Amino acid sequence: MNVVLIVAHPNVKSFNRAIADTAAEVLRKNGHTVLFHDLYAEGFDPLLHDEEIPHDASLQPVVESHCAEAASAEGFVVVHPNWWGQPPAILKGWIDRVLRPGVAYEFLEGDRGEGIPRGLLKARAAVVFNTSNTMQEREVSIFGDPLENIWKECVFGLCGVRNFYRRVFGVIVTSTPEKRSEWLSEVEEVINRLFPIPVKSKKQC
Amino acid sequence: MNVVLIVAHPNVKSFNRAIADTAAEVLRKNGHTVLFHDLYAEGFDPLLHDEEIPHDASLQPVVESHCAEAASAEGFVVVHPNWWGQPPAILKGWIDRVLRPGVAYEFLEGDRGEGIPRGLLKARAAVVFNTSNTMQEREVSIFGDPLENIWKECVFGLCGVRNFYRRVFGVIVTSTPEKRSEWLSEVEEVINRLFPIPVKSKKQC
Repeated sequence: MNVVLIVAHPNVKSFNRAIADTAAEVLRKNGHTVLFHDLYAEGFDPLLHDEEIPHDASLQPVVESHCAEAASAEGFVVVHPNWWGQPPAILKGWIDRVLRPGVAYEFLEGDRGEGIPRGLLKARAAVVFNTSNTMQEREVSIFGDPLENIWKECVFGLCGVRNFYRRVFGVIVTSTPEKRSEWLSEVEEVINRLFPIPVKSKKQC
Repeated sequence: MNVVLIVAHPNVKSFNRAIADTAAEVLRKNGHTVLFHDLYAEGFDPLLHDEEIPHDASLQPVVESHCAEAASAEGFVVVHPNWWGQPPAILKGWIDRVLRPGVAYEFLEGDRGEGIPRGLLKARAAVVFNTSNTMQEREVSIFGDPLENIWKECVFGLCGVRNFYRRVFGVIVTSTPEKRSEWLSEVEEVINRLFPIPVKSKKQC
């Protein structure tokens, strides 16, 4: 199974990167192909420019490649810190540029963009791991936890990926090495559960 | 009154820019100083890098200037399209880089970042104008309208600006010139209401 794995954190030694590396390792161990992108490390340009908006726009090769991967993906894993109830700008730009009409969703004929889009992504599951320095109870009660709806409904729901799981790890800034190690074990469990070793068909036995 | 006005849309001929220009015109007519930033036109770099995160980091002049403006602002007007229930990446980056600890909020002594921050912005009002191609009823019922909490609670609420007003214009893609003109009149009314001509003190009479 092809799994697109996106991590967005400016520090390659961050806990976010450790989560992403753990997820990638488990995915590979389970026989999947990991399309791994550390957006900061790769210098991804997050700006959607006007000439890129039309349906038939000519795309930069890097965007075209991301689009092809997203279209072919059978799974997504996204890892990022909660910055202001949203992803870091670099990841927001990945959403803006890669999840294009014609790739991730489409409007029905006669719909100029005001209607209800149809999701085009064929991924069977999407997982989002977030890190946070805000207690989750406070994130929900005071801030309404915008990231839940952003990923579940606005992004993956709209694009047709209904099997969605999100886990927020925190509080990071005060966490012990033991706690982080426990959290990485949880990452392993989640990935094993959602992207297990494929059951071989009888023909292959 | 100093009012920071931020617009984030890749097309200078967009309706977003028309909203921003209208707001700027009314603000100036009312005697305010407008600190106007079309982030795309200015080529704002939205990436928060690791070396910029520490409280005492040395900042790029452009970020330092934005921070000084935000700290001094007595009002904010933000204009952007709803892209995936979030601002465009370029504006997300303005939030990430400009609304820094020590500028927009701070943690109390002994708090390493896990506690409840105190807002530092002294602005008396913040206004957000959004454009959308999704019916607002659907935005709320299906997507939970993440932009409401993002701006009201996660950004301006956290930074201490409680007098908040947001208006979503839509559906844009099918709107007539007459409708857009009506909407611009509404922008004028909102700005006049929230940023009126200052009442002169008796001393000045």
